[in-house]
Amino acid sequence: MALTDIEHVARNEDGIATVLGILRQRYGDRFQTGADIRRQHAHTTTYIPNQPPDGVLFAKAADEVQEAVRICAGHRVPVIPFGTGSSLEGHINAPGGGVSIDLSGMNRILSVNTEDLDCTVEPGVTRVELNEYLRDTGLFFPIDPGANASIGGMASTRASGTNAVRYGTMRENVLALSAVMADGTLITTAKRAKKSSAGYDLTRLLVGSEGTLGIITSVTLRLHGIPQAISGGVCPFPSLETACRATIATIQMGVPIARIELVNALGMQSINAYSRLDYPVGPCLFVEFHGSETGVEEQAATFAEIVAEHGGGPFTWTTVAEDRARLWKARHDAYWAGMALRPGAQNLTTDVCVPISRLADCIAETEADIAEMKLVAPIVGHVGDGNFHVMLLIDPDEPDERRRAETFVSRLNMRAIGMDGTCTGEHGVGQGKMSYLAHELGPAVDVMRAVKRALDPLDIMNPGKVVPGVAGQG
Amino acid sequence: MALTDIEHVARNEDGIATVLGILRQRYGDRFQTGADIRRQHAHTTTYIPNQPPDGVLFAKAADEVQEAVRICAGHRVPVIPFGTGSSLEGHINAPGGGVSIDLSGMNRILSVNTEDLDCTVEPGVTRVELNEYLRDTGLFFPIDPGANASIGGMASTRASGTNAVRYGTMRENVLALSAVMADGTLITTAKRAKKSSAGYDLTRLLVGSEGTLGIITSVTLRLHGIPQAISGGVCPFPSLETACRATIATIQMGVPIARIELVNALGMQSINAYSRLDYPVGPCLFVEFHGSETGVEEQAATFAEIVAEHGGGPFTWTTVAEDRARLWKARHDAYWAGMALRPGAQNLTTDVCVPISRLADCIAETEADIAEMKLVAPIVGHVGDGNFHVMLLIDPDEPDERRRAETFVSRLNMRAIGMDGTCTGEHGVGQGKMSYLAHELGPAVDVMRAVKRALDPLDIMNPGKVVPGVAGQG
Repeated sequence: MALTDIEHVARNEDGIATVLGILRQRYGDRFQTGADIRRQHAHTTTYIPNQPPDGVLFAKAADEVQEAVRICAGHRVPVIPFGTGSSLEGHINAPGGGVSIDLSGMNRILSVNTEDLDCTVEPGVTRVELNEYLRDTGLFFPIDPGANASIGGMASTRASGTNAVRYGTMRENVLALSAVMADGTLITTAKRAKKSSAGYDLTRLLVGSEGTLGIITSVTLRLHGIPQAISGGVCPFPSLETACRATIATIQMGVPIARIELVNALGMQSINAYSRLDYPVGPCLFVEFHGSETGVEEQAATFAEIVAEHGGGPFTWTTVAEDRARLWKARHDAYWAGMALRPGAQNLTTDVCVPISRLADCIAETEADIAEMKLVAPIVGHVGDGNFHVMLLIDPDEPDERRRAETFVSRLNMRAIGMDGTCTGEHGVGQGKMSYLAHELGPAVDVMRAVKRALDPLDIMNPGKVVPGVAGQG
Repeated sequence: MALTDIEHVARNEDGIATVLGILRQRYGDRFQTGADIRRQHAHTTTYIPNQPPDGVLFAKAADEVQEAVRICAGHRVPVIPFGTGSSLEGHINAPGGGVSIDLSGMNRILSVNTEDLDCTVEPGVTRVELNEYLRDTGLFFPIDPGANASIGGMASTRASGTNAVRYGTMRENVLALSAVMADGTLITTAKRAKKSSAGYDLTRLLVGSEGTLGIITSVTLRLHGIPQAISGGVCPFPSLETACRATIATIQMGVPIARIELVNALGMQSINAYSRLDYPVGPCLFVEFHGSETGVEEQAATFAEIVAEHGGGPFTWTTVAEDRARLWKARHDAYWAGMALRPGAQNLTTDVCVPISRLADCIAETEADIAEMKLVAPIVGHVGDGNFHVMLLIDPDEPDERRRAETFVSRLNMRAIGMDGTCTGEHGVGQGKMSYLAHELGPAVDVMRAVKRALDPLDIMNPGKVVPGVAGQG
């Protein structure tokens, strides 16, 4: 499978021209068609080619999204929602052109219900903005995919990140949402009750649907109490294998660890260089514990025992907020640190997730393959969930290197699927993983296609993404 | 809305006769058409009238389910999956006749992956059977709806129960499932990876779909480590209001309580009488804590402080397994204890769930309404989630009482919806709550209908349930 094996979506030139005229007249300066803005609103983060939309509407409210979708539906023109542009699988590309709806201006926090531990926000609110707003309430929103993504975008890709091992993913933390469907109808998928058996789970159907079924216009999120105590640290291991085994033991012991992140030797080298740190250059686990004072101590002591049993350490940990902040800043900068390993390279980040019992094998085989393929590729992983990323740094002018990368990615995805895992733990399918979806789920993809066609019969909602074989069949 | 305002589904007499002949010939004694067996395989637990299927197939394997669905699809005959028959909203009734597929013989545990904390089971395995099987592994499956329901049935209704406040519901604990769709195709919705962003969340679409989209033939479940220590107790309160306020405070403090169950004064009276106990007769909370030895002590101490602040107590707790077992047996027998309050009465159990900040108000208004309506109705609730059940005990021969019950139920459901809650927290929609679904979710119900029609165009999968306005339109 080629890295750029993306689906063709035919352009409806007449429809696009008509829609551009209507939107320009209706929205004035809030509808932009300049080349730079269009390019910014298509994919810019990886090797996937940029496919700009024909225009960008900066929406201010749900009724504007409804109106824009109705106009586009009336002329069979694609609509692509845009949050911050930090997705990695070409989600915001416009392979058949059309209108990007930029939701960053819909960034109001609509309500915070501290008693219910929930809040409702517009989709353009970013996770950092939300947590800054919440600071005085004693609550926080834990999902942390690294980038300062928008809540709407995170819901769309079913994002997770470093805290998911304890707090779950967007799947578990979205209580309800509102969305504009393909005919312009605005729906709300659920009430604010913590549990519900009221019909089909449209909340979960839209979470992870990547804008292909509807455009999210508000999200009700579960919040969590800021822990009384937080401690964290970095722990080196003699090998990737032992680091994985220690992770597995920690999860199996039921330690309610909040973060357990693996970085391999090359990743640690890049982090040290980029963030001017002197962590051990070898496989390391970055960990964090949340709980009461005694709970956090108990967790750290249990983890230290596990580390020692697996030949790791020394494990040092701190409760000092500044030290923890530095540690996690370094971990979050792993993406940029990796990029700095090979300036000018293109980044191709993989996203497999396997049952944790297979994690050590999967990473070991993958590291061997990186060496065999002579690729430059640090590894970081949310290993408590069995999810890890290989960050391939590719010279765009080297066709042979590109081919080796393609072979490597294909082997990695098929390896994970063969281990009863998935080609994407948290980034989503977008354009980049459509060809793997059928390998992974077989006839279930036909059911996805039936749902897509039922809810978007004209195929205007972010076409050419997620479900293969829909584009051009609408 | 009348209590028996259920949708009419036309009978396809010719198709049914043909299918009965084929199945009788194909399956012999494993296809039964006797009146008693047919009646047993329709709704028997509440006031909803029994609507028996025309025959019952005792299936042994997924390929038999596929074959039966294909035969029924070929003749447009309804198919209704059956687990243990413990559902409460008429889910297993056959309003248009058809074939009940009894899955209780598909009760093999297919795999237990202790390292991955998961297992895969056939749908007929009951939760008690599963936990007995798991006992030596150190793992357990926490979801506990009271009845010894089948795992397939629990997935179908998105069940939860007493442990959901800590461990989540079937929504959070089903990793993947296999299901036979309306055309007889067998799909598997996901791999065993703990996280996945691989396309639409068909797992969550099928969980809670009550057999109307597909028939579940295997379920992969998350398991949890048996806690090192468990403690529990019963705590009386001067009023329902103070018991609710103490619950809210416990949740908001972030105490990871495993169970927190409310029983009102009439409920306690019935439990004492039925189980020959001498608990205080007044509103009580039944609680349980899971964790390490110190963690459990810490939780109990925090809870005791909260109880005292709200004027409750004395709160006594125990770690002795036998004492805890007696306590929870009494709580689980609340259904039968309630029935014994009024022998010969019919039982109508409600299932509202509201944001926890509204719980005290919702229960107070509801208790006042029970008094105003002169009904006999104990209340029990999974109050940590904002979910409670009113068990209306109705004399079937008293039309006036029945009318008062209808008014009461309608007011209660609309009260919960008005408080941003749901008419069903865990029992599902079935036939009983279809008329409330539109009130609760408005145009989202049209999206559910579109999904139903796309995946079951002939409307043969458990017709006349969940989504109003589909029956007869297929």
